[in-house]
Amino acid sequence: MAEHSAPDVSQYPVTGITRFQFAQGKTPKQTDLLSIEEPLEIIINPPQKKPFSLAITMRTPGHDRELAAGFLFAEGIVKNKNDIHDLSPDPDALNPDNNITVTLSRELDIDPDRLQRHFFTNSSCGVCGKTSIQALELLHQPALIANTPVITAETLRHLPQTLRQQQQQFSATGAVHSAALFSADGTLLRLREDVGRHNAVDKLIGSLLLEDQLPLARRSLLLVSGRASFELVQKALMADISILASIGAPTSLAYQLASRHGMTLAGFLKAESFNIYNSPERII
Amino acid sequence: MAEHSAPDVSQYPVTGITRFQFAQGKTPKQTDLLSIEEPLEIIINPPQKKPFSLAITMRTPGHDRELAAGFLFAEGIVKNKNDIHDLSPDPDALNPDNNITVTLSRELDIDPDRLQRHFFTNSSCGVCGKTSIQALELLHQPALIANTPVITAETLRHLPQTLRQQQQQFSATGAVHSAALFSADGTLLRLREDVGRHNAVDKLIGSLLLEDQLPLARRSLLLVSGRASFELVQKALMADISILASIGAPTSLAYQLASRHGMTLAGFLKAESFNIYNSPERII
Repeated sequence: MAEHSAPDVSQYPVTGITRFQFAQGKTPKQTDLLSIEEPLEIIINPPQKKPFSLAITMRTPGHDRELAAGFLFAEGIVKNKNDIHDLSPDPDALNPDNNITVTLSRELDIDPDRLQRHFFTNSSCGVCGKTSIQALELLHQPALIANTPVITAETLRHLPQTLRQQQQQFSATGAVHSAALFSADGTLLRLREDVGRHNAVDKLIGSLLLEDQLPLARRSLLLVSGRASFELVQKALMADISILASIGAPTSLAYQLASRHGMTLAGFLKAESFNIYNSPERII
Repeated sequence: MAEHSAPDVSQYPVTGITRFQFAQGKTPKQTDLLSIEEPLEIIINPPQKKPFSLAITMRTPGHDRELAAGFLFAEGIVKNKNDIHDLSPDPDALNPDNNITVTLSRELDIDPDRLQRHFFTNSSCGVCGKTSIQALELLHQPALIANTPVITAETLRHLPQTLRQQQQQFSATGAVHSAALFSADGTLLRLREDVGRHNAVDKLIGSLLLEDQLPLARRSLLLVSGRASFELVQKALMADISILASIGAPTSLAYQLASRHGMTLAGFLKAESFNIYNSPERII
């Protein structure tokens, strides 16, 4: 098993920017930092079969191994750390910094054709989407989530502040999403950032997978910086997370999927107020 | 040619929500409106070939024909209205509300296998991404944008306010993105909203395509509610839009692509201030 990736290398300095500030008028600004967005190709190397390209995702470089592991976990391709023999970039690839080859363990028998077809129509990778919740459930068969943990409203309301203090990339660029795992007492356990919301969650859950900490046995809460969409609920369900909180709003399909599996969905989370959309018994 | 789609049906009422407001304590809230997120399958019906599924995107229902048209335009599959013979949902499909079949004109000769392979690795559909800017350019060959239009900083700074006043879905749900086309004098020409940023732009550009108004001949400015990512710059380039403004930040790849093609990129647009990242001569 390769070591974990280096921290995100995420800031791209741009010079020669013009900043208009209407109190002071037009002012030249020497440099601004942009979030780096680059494609990552995830290549699967199955036992006794030819490697093939599974997906290309636009991501912020860094934590690429965790991203690939989390993506494969969310897709149901790997179940735990032992299913992965190695995770490494191919130095001979056309773009050596923007690929990860996942070598699966010998015990894992997959059908590349079926996987690619399945991926195309059932991916949780953002816009590729699923045809229906039913199709997702046939694939993943997530269980009903048990009624733990319980978190106080007082703890919950302060999580965005804790998150913001730790969001290093966002502070610099104002352009990345984050996914953070908290314990029920409000301790920040882990944070990942990315230009893509789904990538931030994949990096977070992938890092837990590579440390053999999955499933989470329902001890934790996932906070996402943006909105809660269907795919984020699906990824949280796969990791057995029972409370998903978002700074923004949930979508209809996110709500439906969370309700069906007994996941508590909190939205518009801020210090002054928040909404609990379902299973409110976990918030006391 | 089928008529334009009905307006977006985008709000999903949820009852039984608990709202915590710390000034007043925990209060039950009867109903909240969520943005609807549903999958849309885009099926291509080529002349003298079998129909095939090109993509599934998670979108807000409504303006589905425009979304499909804009998506195909951004992918370089259709160039104008005449390339599309018909755009209709298949009433016999498994999910009749969540599909659009695009019947291409007889003159358009496409290779489904090549298109599906190409789509998989070169899609502009969010996270599927491109392998590189070069691959994109080989495909689309966008021209350098000429030095028009010119917009005053005073006009530009007031666009977010105009946008917000018109964002009906956002007002109700707080969860959708919008894409708006403005003339150089600050008149709002057209607005589309969707849970997906890329979908809002596809709906906007697709509606112009179906009215035979593309290319825009560089008369207009596109304002997006969120961040400016690579894919949004690419979609704007295809429509010959020369100023892309975003309420949020641009990413590194968005900046690189815009710079290469002479598109003016404005970011962090608000009434008090904004940044111009390149080609500032269009902002006076």
